[in-house]
This record gives sequence, structure tokens and C-alpha cells, in this order.
Amino acid sequence: MTLYVIGIGLYDEKDITLRGLEAVKSCDEIYLEHYTSILGVNVKALEKLYGKTVQIASRDLVEREAEEKLLLSAKKKDIALLIVGDVFGATTHTDLQLRAKELGIEFQAIFNASVMNAIGVVGLELYKYGKTTSIVFPDNNWLPSAPYDVIALNQEHGLHTLCLLDIKVAESNLEDIKKGINKPQPPRYMTVEEGLEVLLRLEREKGKKIITKETLVVGVARLGHPDMLIVSGTVAELLITDFGEPLHSLVVPGKLHHIEEEALANL
Amino acid sequence: MTLYVIGIGLYDEKDITLRGLEAVKSCDEIYLEHYTSILGVNVKALEKLYGKTVQIASRDLVEREAEEKLLLSAKKKDIALLIVGDVFGATTHTDLQLRAKELGIEFQAIFNASVMNAIGVVGLELYKYGKTTSIVFPDNNWLPSAPYDVIALNQEHGLHTLCLLDIKVAESNLEDIKKGINKPQPPRYMTVEEGLEVLLRLEREKGKKIITKETLVVGVARLGHPDMLIVSGTVAELLITDFGEPLHSLVVPGKLHHIEEEALANL
Repeated sequence: MTLYVIGIGLYDEKDITLRGLEAVKSCDEIYLEHYTSILGVNVKALEKLYGKTVQIASRDLVEREAEEKLLLSAKKKDIALLIVGDVFGATTHTDLQLRAKELGIEFQAIFNASVMNAIGVVGLELYKYGKTTSIVFPDNNWLPSAPYDVIALNQEHGLHTLCLLDIKVAESNLEDIKKGINKPQPPRYMTVEEGLEVLLRLEREKGKKIITKETLVVGVARLGHPDMLIVSGTVAELLITDFGEPLHSLVVPGKLHHIEEEALANL
Repeated sequence: MTLYVIGIGLYDEKDITLRGLEAVKSCDEIYLEHYTSILGVNVKALEKLYGKTVQIASRDLVEREAEEKLLLSAKKKDIALLIVGDVFGATTHTDLQLRAKELGIEFQAIFNASVMNAIGVVGLELYKYGKTTSIVFPDNNWLPSAPYDVIALNQEHGLHTLCLLDIKVAESNLEDIKKGINKPQPPRYMTVEEGLEVLLRLEREKGKKIITKETLVVGVARLGHPDMLIVSGTVAELLITDFGEPLHSLVVPGKLHHIEEEALANL
């Protein structure tokens, strides 16, 4: 039997491809991975379109219980794992593919749009982006400098930087873990403002003048949704812009071509 | 009325999203842009699914006659421009969006997978790719060094490089142009082998030991098609690998994580 890993796109049930929908309809069990991104609709909308029950797959299920729940099931049944956006945004699915191969299970990926290419809607050319970075919530004052270093490197070469903003879903807090309590916290999605605050804090520590209040940045909220919001402006301006509901992302432009300038001016 | 620019994915008529199909079915005129990528099926397969006529849009139509054919038509009718892969792979569509806005025409992009994110199937993490580069056919011995320089920069920072390989569709040759003859040449699609030959020639000129016969590279043919072929090996090995029909792409890996190593070993 087959383990289908299917990208379902960025907004709602209609963003799946015909190929994806055909595969889902042929499957015996359907899981939706929901800890690395979120859809603009709830699971019921998917279930209605598919005519099938969709189970929520936690990070634990995909990363730790994959063998039992997904892979061994896929020996007897056709299983679909739905991914918001595209299949290969995270290592996990490459790992899943490797483990499927080891166990002699057919693995089929069905592609879709993800933030990695849909970010092109902002108007900056995709081939001029350098390495992508992630900005994470500061944890006990531990603040990784990677995003700052990546932006600095990309800027040096005139390249744009896509900054993915942290998502914490069903994670326990450190105090609870120390006490042996397993109590998931409410989900947290980093806002453009919080992302910029992290970058400004790194700027204060590192002082290379990579991100100042005057730096041009582009904030994106709800990429691919009907109420998508894209705002280009200085860091100071974006810090006081309300981007509303998650997910948010941030782009730090590099050297701009005139069409790119025009595109940002016309957002 | 609306100008819909719709990504139709990488392989066949079933790679369109439900949202994309709904839009196409509502349109009065449908154009397929076919000079930056190719599908695995012909236009007839699309027409059969859509129940509509699909016109081939040349580069001239999209870049030079866009105003007349696409934008002014979209003042009176709903127009769909179908793009193999995704909408925002090339500047042109950002340009089209800007011109639509100037003319007060509604513009709607419908996302899909493109080589820029589907390349994740190779098993190298997307966020560890640096700038993307294009390798073009040498023209009258003029050989741009950009791909070599981009790979060198990415390698220096441990980043992977996606190399898009040249496509020439319906272009005239220089001799004919000089004589004032407008005779389109048959399409040419650069192979993995030809791409590697260009890189080796740049290596001989520049001599930084970025691409040698021993460098590990990954060749990809027909990404997202049922007969997709991904081969990882040294340049010497890939030079004698027959990748078959177009399109081909090339990845030069940077520093490998152990999962990435395992993924390449299991191709």
C-alpha cells in the first residue's frame, strides 16, 4: 500500500490539486499535520470536501510515532498525511520518506505551493533570495543569532532574506517539564512586530547596522488567503502596523531592481 | 473583470488546484504560457479537462503584447493566463500585475508548486539553499560567469545551489536576425550534461576548484512527473548519465546534514 504525503496549499480546502484530492479519496486513513503551519479553514471544511474523517496529527505522531501510526498502517492500508503548504518544507518528511523506503512502503509526494515559492507574490524575484532563516521566540533569554547573521550575509551580496516566524503549537513550558507535568500551552504564532523586536535586540548585541529603525522590510500576513496583507516600510513603520491574525512572515529585501522597487511601492 | 494568473503545477492537467480549475472554468479566454517550462502533457489534455479552448501564449504575447491581448481584454472579459509551475517564478508576472493595477484591472494569482520548492524532493533542506542561478547556452563564445560565482559563494557558506538550465523556445538565431529573417529555431532544452560542461569550462577559466570531476552534484529530470529521475553522483558520473527527456535541473549540494546524506544515498 502507499503512504501519500500531500501538500494542500496555503488557504482552504480548494487549494489541494486534483491529483491530491484523487489520492485523498482513495485513502483509508487521513491525517492532517498542523504544527508547522495553519490553514484558513477548520478540519470540517476538509472533511466535507473529502467525504472522509481527517485526524489531527501532532508533532509527536509525525516525528515519534510515525513508525506505528503512519508507516506500519501504510503496510496494510493507503494512508494520507496532509501538509499545509508543501510536502518538503521540513526535514521530517524526507525522514519519513527514508523510513518508508527502509520498510518497503510505497511513498508518494504530491506537490503544492508553500511559503518558499508563494512569497514571490511580494514582488521580489525568487532567484534573488539567499538562504532562508527562522526567527524563534527567545527562550530563557537564549537568543540564537542565526537570523541576524543570515540577513547580514544576504545583504552583503544584495540578496533578499525570507524570515519564517516561530510557531509553537501544543508545546509544554519549561517549568511544567521540570515538574514532570505534560500540559500543552495554547498555540503561539510570532507576529511581524515580535520578529522585528528580536532582530533589533540582535542588532543591539551585534551592532553591524544590519537592521535599524530605518531598514526597509516587508511584512506578510496570511499569505495566499483572501485577506492577505503585505506591507512594505521601514522597521519603525512596521513595528506599529497591525498585521492581524497569523501566520506572519517577514522579508528583508536586498538590492532592488527597478521593477522590484515599483512592486513594493505599489503594494 | 479579472486577469487570473494561475500556476498549473509541474506535470499534467491534474496538478491544477480546485481553486485554479474553478477560475479557469469561469474565464472567457485562456492562454497557456509555454516558453519558461513545459508540461508532461499537451494542450489537448488541458482543454479536455477545462471544456474550453486553450491558446498558446508566446513570450512576445506575454511580454510585448500583454497590454493588447491580456490586459485590455481583461477589461471586458475574464482572462486566464496559465503558467507551468507557479505564477511568480519570473519577473514578467510581477510586471503584469503592476500594469494591471495601473489600468484598474483586477489581478488574481493562484499559487502552485514550482521548481523553487518542489526541488525539496531531492532530500536537501530548502532553507539551506542559497541564491538560485541559471546556466545558459554559451552564445558566440560569450559565457556568463554568474553560475560559477553563485555556486562558489553558496559553497563558501555551506549552502546548496539550485541551477536552472536554459530553455530556448521559438527563438531566432543571430545569423537570421542579422539578415532580417524571422525564423524561429526548434526548441532547445539544456541537459544536465550540457550544464555540467558549462560549469567545467568556467572552472577551467576561473580555477577556484569549485566544480571538478569529483564534485558531488545532483541531476534532476522531469521534476514532479511519474518518470522523474534524480541521480546523485560526481560530475564525472553525471556527465555519462542519460537523463532522457527535458526539463533538467542541477543541484550543487553544500554542507550535508546526516539526513541529507542519507537521502542522497537512497535516491
